[in-house]
Amino acid sequence: MTTPPPPTETVIGQVVAATDLPPTGSRPLVIALDAMGGDKAPDMVIRGVAIAHERYPDAHFLLFGQQQRLLPLLNRRSKLQQAITIVHTDDVIAGDQKPSVALRSQPHSSMRLAIRAVREGKAHAAISAGNTGALMALGKAVLGMLPGIRRPAIASLFPTMRGECVMLDLGANVESDASTLVQNAYLGDAFARALLGFTNPSIGLLNVGSEMQKGREDLKQAAQQLQDDPDPLHFTGFIEGDDITAGTVDVVVTDGFTGNIALKTAEGTARLYSSFLKQTLKNSLSAKIGYLFARHAFRGLRLRLDPRHYNGAVLLGLKGILVKSHGGTDAVGFANAIGVGVDMVRHGFIERVRHHFEPATDPTA
Amino acid sequence: MTTPPPPTETVIGQVVAATDLPPTGSRPLVIALDAMGGDKAPDMVIRGVAIAHERYPDAHFLLFGQQQRLLPLLNRRSKLQQAITIVHTDDVIAGDQKPSVALRSQPHSSMRLAIRAVREGKAHAAISAGNTGALMALGKAVLGMLPGIRRPAIASLFPTMRGECVMLDLGANVESDASTLVQNAYLGDAFARALLGFTNPSIGLLNVGSEMQKGREDLKQAAQQLQDDPDPLHFTGFIEGDDITAGTVDVVVTDGFTGNIALKTAEGTARLYSSFLKQTLKNSLSAKIGYLFARHAFRGLRLRLDPRHYNGAVLLGLKGILVKSHGGTDAVGFANAIGVGVDMVRHGFIERVRHHFEPATDPTA
Repeated sequence: MTTPPPPTETVIGQVVAATDLPPTGSRPLVIALDAMGGDKAPDMVIRGVAIAHERYPDAHFLLFGQQQRLLPLLNRRSKLQQAITIVHTDDVIAGDQKPSVALRSQPHSSMRLAIRAVREGKAHAAISAGNTGALMALGKAVLGMLPGIRRPAIASLFPTMRGECVMLDLGANVESDASTLVQNAYLGDAFARALLGFTNPSIGLLNVGSEMQKGREDLKQAAQQLQDDPDPLHFTGFIEGDDITAGTVDVVVTDGFTGNIALKTAEGTARLYSSFLKQTLKNSLSAKIGYLFARHAFRGLRLRLDPRHYNGAVLLGLKGILVKSHGGTDAVGFANAIGVGVDMVRHGFIERVRHHFEPATDPTA
Repeated sequence: MTTPPPPTETVIGQVVAATDLPPTGSRPLVIALDAMGGDKAPDMVIRGVAIAHERYPDAHFLLFGQQQRLLPLLNRRSKLQQAITIVHTDDVIAGDQKPSVALRSQPHSSMRLAIRAVREGKAHAAISAGNTGALMALGKAVLGMLPGIRRPAIASLFPTMRGECVMLDLGANVESDASTLVQNAYLGDAFARALLGFTNPSIGLLNVGSEMQKGREDLKQAAQQLQDDPDPLHFTGFIEGDDITAGTVDVVVTDGFTGNIALKTAEGTARLYSSFLKQTLKNSLSAKIGYLFARHAFRGLRLRLDPRHYNGAVLLGLKGILVKSHGGTDAVGFANAIGVGVDMVRHGFIERVRHHFEPATDPTA
């Protein structure tokens, strides 16, 4: 793939052209942001960056997007301005744009330029709340896959009774086969080591029963391969849907179709529970009084189950760190997605995966 | 398949041999129960029947199982004894028994005799909390499939923001193809009409996105077939995992693998939320005081989300009503599973499905 010509930008104040961006060099943390991706962008992005700036004062943020919309949002944020460089581009990938069009006909989209900054060594990670399909296609095309990895996977953290677990694939590939599942197991292992600091994370394959004769053929084959591997993971066998939140394993491995359904079903169920709880506490005078006494505790509960806390899914298997924020998120959620990117940079995730994968797990080697 | 010889039982008090059972005749409601199925059987079953007896005083219950274990449990329940006939058999299908063994080598299991009572017109419905695989195999072998239906599906009700929806298949078939999905749509339509009283239930296909170009091939084909059908259902298109609890549609159609994962993930998430809520309310003195005031309201919430309330999945597509209770359920849950069977009998479900299916939906016709 040839690099498309750079967009023509004007440099105003802290606005620079993509081609003029310096390499990260000695700067410890440079994060590229697709400032135009997401239902509430760019306003949500700027407010998210402001939160992230408080949390990571040593990080520098590259904002890719329309300067005429971004600059006014930065007007009264003089502190934040120091931590930001705007890279102007007019082109934005629409939420309903076909990935193939985004890939072929939009060489200067804000999403693409953000990803390209990672490839060119001008940023350590890229974050976008835009079109998932386009992000996957651009991630693969611009960053490329790590050696030994055939297909990327989307991974995220998930709350459990025992803390947090990693689940993947959450939707990168809707077709499932044994070797992709095995690869997901290795990617999930590396992700859990890097992001949660586990030394030997336990890994389970999501199935409709825990007995080894249950389920689809691809799952049985993947389980066999994981058991036979000479460099084995801590694979514990099949788990079921309720094991995800039970925290039975540290890494839940599944195909992109099943993982996407499980993730969204869990989100929907949490929303249902929360809505029923709210209604319950308005049911009677004594319930309302009870709520007044317990409202601080409820705030804690809300925070603990806040989906924004788990915002930030990572496209694993690429030669760079690319984080997908939920499209409908707000500033807090977007700041958390930035945090996921920061964690992965700080833990040297790419080097770990590279090291982990190259010697052992290329199934075609 | 030939009918195996009847078991040799002694007739003591209200204990009769399977062969001596009278036809249902004019009795409005006869329910056959596998008294030995489930983790806490038979104690849980007897207590469940006691609850069901209060709810359905006109129902008569046939209890299939070991009389030496059942009779002592009925000792002080003189009122209940009137509503019960025990059909003794020593053979019980273990929870981990292979379905093929249960099918071929256990001709007098309590589960099989209960199902056979339905086939022979001696009961209107059968309920079991035993081994799911065995129940499916025996259901198909003993009752047979309704004309025009190739594969059974497991369906259950699910709580939503707007009330309840039907979801199927929850695990009868782990492989997915377009014609089975289409069939599930028709079965779910009939189930929602019979059990929830909907006149034209809306139907959605579970997928990873709502756009028609998204997802797996079998789903796209099924959607096309449902749209092209000359006798159409109220098919609204693809839905996502969070649409289940949002109540976007009345009937959620999916394959048995995905449905099983979604169901158990939802159960696990509800359990997680509930556990976090409990911890929250013990966090501080004011939270504890709040709980005291709101405890009645919380009881309502617990009841509303009580998984026992949704216990009782139905094997659709058979020539008789067969209800699967959760194996780990208690008496309240088992009574609710009996209630599902009662509702289906009262609404003439089998006749409805027969009527619905025969003219329109045999995809091989």
